[in-house]
Amino acid sequence: MAASPYLLLLLLLVHPAAAPASSALPPSQPPPPRPPQKVQVWPKPVTVSWPTAVYAPLAPSFSIRASPSHPSLRHAIAYYSRLIRSERYAPIVPPANYTLSRVPIRLLALSVADPVVPLGPGVDESYTLSVPPNTGSADISSATTWGAIRGLETFSQLSWAGGGPDSGGQPIVPCDIEISDHPLFTHRGILLDTARNYYPVRDILRTIRAMAFNKLNVFHWHITDSQSFPLVLPSVPNLANSGSYSPAMRYTDQDVRRVVRFAEAFGIRVIPEIDMPGEYELTRHTGSWAGAYPEIVTCADKFWAPAAKPALAAEPGTGQLNPLNPKTYRVAQDVLRDLAALFPDPYLHGGADEVNTACWEDDPVVRRFLADGGSHDRLLELFVNATRPFLVHELNRTVVYWEDVLLGPKVSVGQTVLPRDTTVLQTWNNGAENTKRIVAAGYRAIVSSASYYYLDCGHGGWVGNDSRYDVQDKEREGTPLFNDPGGTGGSWCAPFKTWQRIYDYDILHGLTEDEATRVLGGEVALWSEQSDAVVLDARLWPRAAAAAETLWSGNKGANGRKRYANATSRLNEWRYRMVARGIRAEPIQPLWCPLHPRMCHLSE
Amino acid sequence: MAASPYLLLLLLLVHPAAAPASSALPPSQPPPPRPPQKVQVWPKPVTVSWPTAVYAPLAPSFSIRASPSHPSLRHAIAYYSRLIRSERYAPIVPPANYTLSRVPIRLLALSVADPVVPLGPGVDESYTLSVPPNTGSADISSATTWGAIRGLETFSQLSWAGGGPDSGGQPIVPCDIEISDHPLFTHRGILLDTARNYYPVRDILRTIRAMAFNKLNVFHWHITDSQSFPLVLPSVPNLANSGSYSPAMRYTDQDVRRVVRFAEAFGIRVIPEIDMPGEYELTRHTGSWAGAYPEIVTCADKFWAPAAKPALAAEPGTGQLNPLNPKTYRVAQDVLRDLAALFPDPYLHGGADEVNTACWEDDPVVRRFLADGGSHDRLLELFVNATRPFLVHELNRTVVYWEDVLLGPKVSVGQTVLPRDTTVLQTWNNGAENTKRIVAAGYRAIVSSASYYYLDCGHGGWVGNDSRYDVQDKEREGTPLFNDPGGTGGSWCAPFKTWQRIYDYDILHGLTEDEATRVLGGEVALWSEQSDAVVLDARLWPRAAAAAETLWSGNKGANGRKRYANATSRLNEWRYRMVARGIRAEPIQPLWCPLHPRMCHLSE
Repeated sequence: MAASPYLLLLLLLVHPAAAPASSALPPSQPPPPRPPQKVQVWPKPVTVSWPTAVYAPLAPSFSIRASPSHPSLRHAIAYYSRLIRSERYAPIVPPANYTLSRVPIRLLALSVADPVVPLGPGVDESYTLSVPPNTGSADISSATTWGAIRGLETFSQLSWAGGGPDSGGQPIVPCDIEISDHPLFTHRGILLDTARNYYPVRDILRTIRAMAFNKLNVFHWHITDSQSFPLVLPSVPNLANSGSYSPAMRYTDQDVRRVVRFAEAFGIRVIPEIDMPGEYELTRHTGSWAGAYPEIVTCADKFWAPAAKPALAAEPGTGQLNPLNPKTYRVAQDVLRDLAALFPDPYLHGGADEVNTACWEDDPVVRRFLADGGSHDRLLELFVNATRPFLVHELNRTVVYWEDVLLGPKVSVGQTVLPRDTTVLQTWNNGAENTKRIVAAGYRAIVSSASYYYLDCGHGGWVGNDSRYDVQDKEREGTPLFNDPGGTGGSWCAPFKTWQRIYDYDILHGLTEDEATRVLGGEVALWSEQSDAVVLDARLWPRAAAAAETLWSGNKGANGRKRYANATSRLNEWRYRMVARGIRAEPIQPLWCPLHPRMCHLSE
Repeated sequence: MAASPYLLLLLLLVHPAAAPASSALPPSQPPPPRPPQKVQVWPKPVTVSWPTAVYAPLAPSFSIRASPSHPSLRHAIAYYSRLIRSERYAPIVPPANYTLSRVPIRLLALSVADPVVPLGPGVDESYTLSVPPNTGSADISSATTWGAIRGLETFSQLSWAGGGPDSGGQPIVPCDIEISDHPLFTHRGILLDTARNYYPVRDILRTIRAMAFNKLNVFHWHITDSQSFPLVLPSVPNLANSGSYSPAMRYTDQDVRRVVRFAEAFGIRVIPEIDMPGEYELTRHTGSWAGAYPEIVTCADKFWAPAAKPALAAEPGTGQLNPLNPKTYRVAQDVLRDLAALFPDPYLHGGADEVNTACWEDDPVVRRFLADGGSHDRLLELFVNATRPFLVHELNRTVVYWEDVLLGPKVSVGQTVLPRDTTVLQTWNNGAENTKRIVAAGYRAIVSSASYYYLDCGHGGWVGNDSRYDVQDKEREGTPLFNDPGGTGGSWCAPFKTWQRIYDYDILHGLTEDEATRVLGGEVALWSEQSDAVVLDARLWPRAAAAAETLWSGNKGANGRKRYANATSRLNEWRYRMVARGIRAEPIQPLWCPLHPRMCHLSE
């Protein structure tokens, strides 16, 4: 991050050397009434016990130690030591009326019961954190390394630059505090589409870092799609040679290992999704393969919505893998084998959404098959049966598919084709309804309903030559609204999903207790038709943080009611802290609002 | 700008030393069919004559000289010399099949007929640019300095890194070319709200630079509003003392002079709008004054939408200047006088939108006035009559007001209160209808209809404690849609206005020839409730560029038909070039689209 003046401004907030450290914003406006002392940790921990408003300073020699030490903790310890020692965050509304203990905190000790438990689905991420009074030390206890890492993030957020005007904003942490914390859901992710537009590795790493700040633990990497194939696979390098946007816009195996390693160091799993035959994005999303293997792709390089035919694809960029060409499966297996070698996670995502029947029918062999009594469902079944078992039995993976493969509506396979114990389904449509259908049928679900969790919605349409925008008079009731309130403005899943919309989503809504046990968690999704690295952070944050809290500790207060009102000021603070940490998150309100708590609510 | 890897990636595009400079993206994908040779200049110049596809290299000693020289040109010459010499832009789809002349261009000569014409409304910005074959020089002729600056920008965009693989991406420009160019509208602006959230000076300067790239020429600085008053005025410093978010979030007179000077050097006018009594944002937007002068503000520091009353403001942050308190006008005159001293432009913006009657009625003196037969209209008239003549006759300004002051609908004044020769009205509502009402009444208009030009629309709502997002089931027809297609998602002016929507807007629609002469031009507006410096560039660009072209050279092709289809690939290129120049503009499509011209259109 360049030292832009805006960052310098934030540094002023963070290093309030000239200003009293107890208030980063000296009252130009009358100070609001002070609420009771709370800690500002996002996501909000499950249990916080802090009976006194006492803080302790961090000693300059502050260090973190794990006993026993373990390689899986080494990066996190180094990272959080640096962060905690150097960060000088000054809140927008700093705490007041607190006592500062004289006993500085020198040591944060990590006790991990079982540090060899590998990262994977369902690992124990719980931790307890305590800062006993007057001992000069703090403790984090956890079952696994991954819980300890969650605890470290919490500790980093407890710290703020409250050491008083003479201390130059020395960091202080609450003492005499006990936190007990664990996630509601074990799968809390972000999907990033790096195929519609490319993202350099550095931007992916920064995203993973921001995920760690928010205790998100799954990076669902939608690496390839119709438009581009940036992944360099050792056995099939010509996919990237032909399919990437340019040589500079690729991910080598070295890049992938770097991402996987960096993510693991923060306790974040990386689940790849590749446009592939069989288990992967086998359907319409494989146009990018046609440069390398034109013979195994149907309807490649055609106009996506020709006037004389049904659309060949849901959006520009045509091409689907041909389930009737045996070569498809030879290439597929090479791709899958390489993929499994690069990505160690037990889960691999097979895509299988939005099969386009017209695209398949563009191929004469497919047409003959259908004329002879075949069906589209049967074609999909051929694909799945030719690749899923290979993935499961030879490569030892659980396969994630999009809901379409089972639910359709257009093309789907039967439940017998998808064993429950090795298949997980990811929702994107029809909100709670489709979640129910999946878990009621006995499958595990990852929830990503577009109505709540698709981050790209509400940004208008992106196809060109679109005359629907060319309306000069006010749209009248009864005519198709498009550009004015009531219209989508071109975005199929409009309107824009605000942080409150995301926060309020109850992914277990309408489920029985038994059904709810099969919901692994959720993922917010950034589809990149109108996003790339230049705008990535603002697209993701802080809205992904809203999902992060709801999936970690829920969206209800102690009284059982939704707590989105309370969350507003906390998310304002968290947004500014993320910006100070180098994540270019967008603002959620005028700065006036956190300075005037509750004055920006819809109702008092 | 930090040398982020993404920027390095773009530098790779821009310095394709290793790659053949004639193609920044070596064909991973089959090269698209080459269109006839065109220049890539945004906004598209009115007339380009380039019969041959010949380029000439720029000499390393390339320089720019004006005769006669003039101080008003000095900065632009220095800036564009540096830019043109150092920029190495490699287009996404580079020209091919061109000839490179051996005669390098050494000199760009500027001939300005009348360099003393000051910057102001309606100045002549026309220019002609020619690069005669084989002379080693280029010429720009213009009536004024401001036209020369427009020509310099055009010349900078003619240049691209096409010098061939051995040249290390040496810049080349078309030669044997003649361009003749002038704007359709003399007022082509951006409104930036720096009150809802603060923007450091550096971000304002970068915005002005980006405006210069796009030949936009008015920076409408909406400096203050209810939520904050960041402007330090010498006679009334306590407005900023009490009203700014913090001491660091202010604009000193030094800051203002810097902005005004920097803008003028690019031929960009700065028109300030301040929440003020009388001519300025006299209405609901003056809550920020209450810290300094509580006695002249009605309904200050109240909850904006109390359950028991009509709303006191259109959004959180209450307070309006009291038209019945004489002190209001003493403060107002101090403010206006200071403002006029800081901002030399002949225009000053007086606000006067969205008067909230309930807020005024919160004051007992106002209530008594109304009970005695007064009206809200009369109150507004008092304000206007007490301040507008001072502005016009003592400070020698033309006053711009929002349309509400004349059109209402709630509170307005009669035409006799607003002389046509010194009053300009700015639209924001009801599209072409309100433009018509204004110009039909004989007033000049600046067009900013929210349905086309409000850049903040479609980003959801920002008020907190908003239960409307908390819907778990699919919204059904017949119920108020909010979160799903058909709903606004919280944004009053949803949906998001795409570049196509903005581009297609015909601001003269429905006007007679005479009426059209009173339309000065248009402004896109960025209201900052959900924007600040972290996201500024993406909010503005490239959508403001779309307006820039339509206001400069229109949105129709030579055949008289709308040219938005053609504009898509040009805007893709222009977006990437702006990013390379340090403006963090958002992408408009997948990169696949410009690589496959016309394949991403809605119809062939």
